[in-house]
Amino acid sequence: MPIEMLMMVNGARTGPLPAGATMAAAAGVRPGTPDRNRDMTHPFDAAIALTPGGEHLFTGATHPAYANMVGPYGGITSATLLNAALQHPERLGAPIALTVNYAGPVADGPFEIHARPTRTNRSTQHWSLELSQQGVVATTATAVFAERRPTWSAPEAMPPGDLPPPADVPPLDWPERLPWTRRYDMRFIEGSIPQPMDGVEQPHALTRVWLRDEPPRPLDFPALASLCDAFFPRVFSRRRVFAPAGTVTLTSYFHADADLLAAQGERHVLGVARGLNYRNGFHDQSAEIWSADGQLLASTHQMVYFRD
Amino acid sequence: MPIEMLMMVNGARTGPLPAGATMAAAAGVRPGTPDRNRDMTHPFDAAIALTPGGEHLFTGATHPAYANMVGPYGGITSATLLNAALQHPERLGAPIALTVNYAGPVADGPFEIHARPTRTNRSTQHWSLELSQQGVVATTATAVFAERRPTWSAPEAMPPGDLPPPADVPPLDWPERLPWTRRYDMRFIEGSIPQPMDGVEQPHALTRVWLRDEPPRPLDFPALASLCDAFFPRVFSRRRVFAPAGTVTLTSYFHADADLLAAQGERHVLGVARGLNYRNGFHDQSAEIWSADGQLLASTHQMVYFRD
Repeated sequence: MPIEMLMMVNGARTGPLPAGATMAAAAGVRPGTPDRNRDMTHPFDAAIALTPGGEHLFTGATHPAYANMVGPYGGITSATLLNAALQHPERLGAPIALTVNYAGPVADGPFEIHARPTRTNRSTQHWSLELSQQGVVATTATAVFAERRPTWSAPEAMPPGDLPPPADVPPLDWPERLPWTRRYDMRFIEGSIPQPMDGVEQPHALTRVWLRDEPPRPLDFPALASLCDAFFPRVFSRRRVFAPAGTVTLTSYFHADADLLAAQGERHVLGVARGLNYRNGFHDQSAEIWSADGQLLASTHQMVYFRD
Repeated sequence: MPIEMLMMVNGARTGPLPAGATMAAAAGVRPGTPDRNRDMTHPFDAAIALTPGGEHLFTGATHPAYANMVGPYGGITSATLLNAALQHPERLGAPIALTVNYAGPVADGPFEIHARPTRTNRSTQHWSLELSQQGVVATTATAVFAERRPTWSAPEAMPPGDLPPPADVPPLDWPERLPWTRRYDMRFIEGSIPQPMDGVEQPHALTRVWLRDEPPRPLDFPALASLCDAFFPRVFSRRRVFAPAGTVTLTSYFHADADLLAAQGERHVLGVARGLNYRNGFHDQSAEIWSADGQLLASTHQMVYFRD
């Protein structure tokens, strides 16, 4: 089974990979630009870009830089849906929670997002979001936004200690990788997937990995939402066997506010992921995203469909 | 501050407690029934009952047995929304995931639920759900259903060992309790809340508690959905101070299928809850619901609004 099966997340493939998805195009590099690093639009910003298209409506398009085996990477869809609420003129405050349901495949090409504030309170706001293509719903989502106020604050969980810094961990360097995985610098401390898969069942699927946008980009809420889906399905880590698997629903909680995101900047975040249970076609995954300074930026949970 | 503040979850109170909420009425006991245990409708079934009211529409009403300080207990609202999808003629399979967003207060009285299958695939189905009162949205939700197929299955997390059985743990017996807490037999092994609160900040908010519908009732998906919200806000366990707090969004994953639920029957489940982080008005909570036989029935996550 090809290595690409590893990346088969978020629905069933519906068409061929885009023909023009070269690495240069994927990285957003425009030919003839003298200083590419200074001048180019980051591919992440290009991928989540939306155009207002009427009341509560936005249009966008999938981007080859974040292509998966199956349409776009689920994390970029999550970030794009969040971006619709962020761009909406009625938006209040900052994201607290986001749930994205991958109801069906997203085909490469244009899409429409319906972003509706279902209720706006004094300090909280609730959103319903739907991504559709040619009138067919592909993804649904809800989000909670809020204006945070200073209160008693404290961590309860702490990040794992004694981890090697990103510079001491080699980056993932598979010869064959789907485009979206090249948009993250991934440095696995524990729980990577061997290539080729060896079929040796593991006692657990704990993964610890340094993650960073590639090329580097200052962290913001859409980028954090996307990082929440950047873990390979737990069933691959656990079984070391390739088989179809895909996220059906993803919930992300944003513990970070704008100040914490600004403090993080372009550095690596630490991702820690695990599963609780695998049963008859579905398993869960929970993960935390920790800042370089050991602050909890996000916690995230998903249910994943899998086959033998 | 009154003990009732403890139960102030899911929105701001909008009206007086229902005058007729006696314990007899709350337990669904009808006067003059010779064999009450055999004949009565369980209050849970009465509380989640829905009447079809048109395409994708159902009507229901809050039930005094599950009254909170603030409208109905959030778990019963979650169960009622799930029930709308379960009762819908187009429903496929069994629940896999449910996200409920408590957008605003639910007033005591009638409500309307709009339950729409947003996409039906071969083996999965996605739902959008909204509970409204007099045209104002109070609660939104999404759900994923699926027809499970046998696959490789395995636990990863295990339930805590060496716990005393329910019979050896005293039930919660506060003199003043809001109605919904009397609909659960709660036996705290660890992490209960002192009465009165002593303001002694704890190093963590870990809770282990045996839970069971009161009176006993065979476990099904709506009852499991409701149990997922039966933990007091983590900030109360952590700080031992009363202050307003309420769930803003609740996601529950159903690891159990119908066979596991049938095997559980009316016995106590074990609930284990904790938080990761408390920051400027919001904290998370994650919990597992374990069967009496040590099987994971559900895992559940929420973000909670809190004030000092």
